[in-house]
Amino acid sequence: MTSLPRVLTIAGSDSGGGAGIQADLKTIAALGCYGTSALTAITAQDTLGVHAVEGISTGMVKHQIQVVLGDIGTDAIKTGMLFSRETIEAVVEALGAHFGPRDRGGREKARLVVDPVCVSTSGHSLLPLEAVDTLRRECLPWATVLTPNIPEAEFLADWEKGSIRSVDDMERCASELGALGVRYVYLKGGHMPLESRQGEPGRKVVVDLLWDADTRTATKEERPYLDVKNTHGTGCTLAAAIASELAKGQPVQRAVVTAADYVAAAIAAAYPVGRGSGPVNHFHSLMPRTLSLPSPHSPTPFTDFLINYNRAAWDRYVFHPFPQGLADGSMPLDSFLHFIQQDYHFLKQYGRSNSLAAYKTDDMLQMAGSIQIVNDVIRETEMHVKYCEKYGISRAELQAVPESLSNIAYTRYVLDTSMQGDLLDARVVTAPCLIGYGHVGKRLLAAQDGVERDEEKNPYWGWIAEYGSDWYQGAVQKGIQLLEDSLVANPISPARLLELAKVFEKATLLEIAFWDAAVGADGAEMTAQRRDLPH
Amino acid sequence: MTSLPRVLTIAGSDSGGGAGIQADLKTIAALGCYGTSALTAITAQDTLGVHAVEGISTGMVKHQIQVVLGDIGTDAIKTGMLFSRETIEAVVEALGAHFGPRDRGGREKARLVVDPVCVSTSGHSLLPLEAVDTLRRECLPWATVLTPNIPEAEFLADWEKGSIRSVDDMERCASELGALGVRYVYLKGGHMPLESRQGEPGRKVVVDLLWDADTRTATKEERPYLDVKNTHGTGCTLAAAIASELAKGQPVQRAVVTAADYVAAAIAAAYPVGRGSGPVNHFHSLMPRTLSLPSPHSPTPFTDFLINYNRAAWDRYVFHPFPQGLADGSMPLDSFLHFIQQDYHFLKQYGRSNSLAAYKTDDMLQMAGSIQIVNDVIRETEMHVKYCEKYGISRAELQAVPESLSNIAYTRYVLDTSMQGDLLDARVVTAPCLIGYGHVGKRLLAAQDGVERDEEKNPYWGWIAEYGSDWYQGAVQKGIQLLEDSLVANPISPARLLELAKVFEKATLLEIAFWDAAVGADGAEMTAQRRDLPH
Repeated sequence: MTSLPRVLTIAGSDSGGGAGIQADLKTIAALGCYGTSALTAITAQDTLGVHAVEGISTGMVKHQIQVVLGDIGTDAIKTGMLFSRETIEAVVEALGAHFGPRDRGGREKARLVVDPVCVSTSGHSLLPLEAVDTLRRECLPWATVLTPNIPEAEFLADWEKGSIRSVDDMERCASELGALGVRYVYLKGGHMPLESRQGEPGRKVVVDLLWDADTRTATKEERPYLDVKNTHGTGCTLAAAIASELAKGQPVQRAVVTAADYVAAAIAAAYPVGRGSGPVNHFHSLMPRTLSLPSPHSPTPFTDFLINYNRAAWDRYVFHPFPQGLADGSMPLDSFLHFIQQDYHFLKQYGRSNSLAAYKTDDMLQMAGSIQIVNDVIRETEMHVKYCEKYGISRAELQAVPESLSNIAYTRYVLDTSMQGDLLDARVVTAPCLIGYGHVGKRLLAAQDGVERDEEKNPYWGWIAEYGSDWYQGAVQKGIQLLEDSLVANPISPARLLELAKVFEKATLLEIAFWDAAVGADGAEMTAQRRDLPH
Repeated sequence: MTSLPRVLTIAGSDSGGGAGIQADLKTIAALGCYGTSALTAITAQDTLGVHAVEGISTGMVKHQIQVVLGDIGTDAIKTGMLFSRETIEAVVEALGAHFGPRDRGGREKARLVVDPVCVSTSGHSLLPLEAVDTLRRECLPWATVLTPNIPEAEFLADWEKGSIRSVDDMERCASELGALGVRYVYLKGGHMPLESRQGEPGRKVVVDLLWDADTRTATKEERPYLDVKNTHGTGCTLAAAIASELAKGQPVQRAVVTAADYVAAAIAAAYPVGRGSGPVNHFHSLMPRTLSLPSPHSPTPFTDFLINYNRAAWDRYVFHPFPQGLADGSMPLDSFLHFIQQDYHFLKQYGRSNSLAAYKTDDMLQMAGSIQIVNDVIRETEMHVKYCEKYGISRAELQAVPESLSNIAYTRYVLDTSMQGDLLDARVVTAPCLIGYGHVGKRLLAAQDGVERDEEKNPYWGWIAEYGSDWYQGAVQKGIQLLEDSLVANPISPARLLELAKVFEKATLLEIAFWDAAVGADGAEMTAQRRDLPH
């Protein structure tokens, strides 16, 4: 429930979704911040170009900034397309009104990144010439970082077009821009591919340069040159990424590197959109969460998923006639004795499986959890021994009973799954037994009809009472919590979730086969209709 | 590189970022679609309310829709705040121009979800009364789904406010709205909490109702009532989610359920923003990717991470004096013989570890990959046997050599890690040996200085040549590819990545200790400075 760092973008709208506030808000979200926006202009734009522009009134620009800063606040700001001289003046006025004079701490508080959008990638002019002076004079002194590309740097510094031809030229130009009052100039070298001096001959690189106007020093970073088509909105994206990193409290030196890495990866991960210069993939750094986080709406999403993956099998298990026959006392004694003897041997292997789970962890709490289950299993088997003795089967006779086919199949499947996989496999494969017996015990203990609680009339009631008891129900709750916690701490991929759901399903079907054997039924169908995975 | 389903939102802008196109674009992205937008109006809005509204010219509204549909295209459309009668007419005109007449397939192609935004959550009127008739008459017949809440349904159906008091009322009202020409009405029950008939007494639920106007049947779904504050933008979010699901090709019946699940989880996952009714958490369904996907910019991100996690240890390993002494022939024969005998025994356990990795998978390709490594190891040990025989150590004598401490420590760590964890642990713990020997062999085979290639002068050159050879280098490339593929298929959490990096680091330190023992050094330092995890 903690809040996220906040970033305000003041920019135009790109209907095509690849640049402008759309790119900014995507970037801000992808980098883990909360984005707000003040629109300065609307464009009818697609991947081929900007087809029309309509400005927003300066009053409205100011109003948007005011309400956002007043209510939500911000940890950094990014400006993109500022549309007109009047808009720039309105923005600067709104910044001054909220943060105080820029030379008395206002600039430091605003953490402003200025992307000097003058011309779009597609060549459309996005700022009238008369506004450029206002940008230089009024806006740049507010900027913590200015992020021009080479043509923009030449334009803003009043250099001739094409006059930056070397990294030294970049540095001189950046220093002139720094003199306009901006704290850092991050001059992007993407328009000037250079031959690398290292690696394979012919390998092209670009150099990005960060000019610190206070210390008058430059930091340079060489990056592979990416000769690609989908670069629509990269300027917006980079500036928004820098603002997001500043909002997180990163120093400028680190923010620009993280932002440039983010943009490079977004370019590499682009997918086709439209017929022209498509957008980058802003969400390359995120992936779908396979399951929702636990919430009041859905407190145990992992357990629910495992059960619902094959709900029909689960229901056949927990509503099986065998425990029902124990609850109402109608189960033939032979069936019960067959079951209780096999279950005794089952629990031996179940104890071994949980011991193996303890081997699978270095975490002492997890180890203690597994060992507690083994202790509970040992306690449980004593109940089995007592039931057998009551019906004249000695402890030694019980030990000598051969394991049935369904018992061997189930227990060795559980052991092998725990051996083959990791701790989570070991937990999931033992879960249907733990949770299912809990479900059956709780339901039948509370049932109004179809139960016989008088132990004189129903010799099996103790069995129901044991699994409905507080200690067993507590063990079930602990086991479910352990499963849910594992996934919150260590989210898994859809493929892994599917694998685990199949393990849970197979163990469930083996539970059914185990009870089928007790009542003399044919054995469970080991294949079943499955539900789709969530996407 | 496949494209994503596309969704166009035609709506207003919320500067606060929680509603309007901002909420729509977040929802569309979170559900795996690509979002475009046509703005109808700008609001100065925060979590406390709508403070000002400015409309966009109808020409510009139409222009945005035209360029987006013309270049990028769309698989579904959502409308939100439509601002005015003229805007509604412009939207309908643009739809007709692109999709053709609505009653001749246009409606089916547009897949339009209409969120009838009339009043904001905070009570601000968002559509003039005179426009409501136009909405009913012109827009609704285009809609595949109309998504009113209870007050909106009453308003659109001309029912008195507060007249829907039961699920039956909802159904009657939905059927009247269906008669206006919309295909489905999804009437949201969130404003009418009901006492649940199941579960604990007092538990509140709401009923969402989907009315199919063609078959004149209703489907109802009961959901837990969420009495929460952060519901700003839930209407926009729901409609955008439905449109996203339709864009993916889901049938309406399923799209509304998925969308309602998404909204409920987004409400549950909300974090504080602003002082009023905050936004939902649109990105609850995504999580940060721990590592970038492989790209031309960074083709082996997982291997790079493992190596760079403790780069100093890696460099101490691959630039160890031992292989250097073999490359230039300066290594004393005793050291070499110590090493080659221990390495023979090392490879036995390394073979067993890779066999165990084969046990850990059901995938025949993965199994074949592991078995291939075991075959390669068997081939490698024959080189060791020949070297030993050359220096008068028989095969039987070699077998009888006791394992050294550093050998036992390393091999049993590898075996135990493979046993304790899953296939990926088994692959990572064996990777430093595979990749490191490949690095050393490749580098020294190509080295200009400090090598002696004449086997008369340097008896060890064959060892270097073996690990620099194409077959060994090919095995290394296959091993790296296997590692990278595992992570693309099955992304892991930051905690798991850290665990694996520590395994890789420990095996690297054990490699150093192994070579230290050969040259009679003290044994490696088993702790080392680690770099930060990527955030």
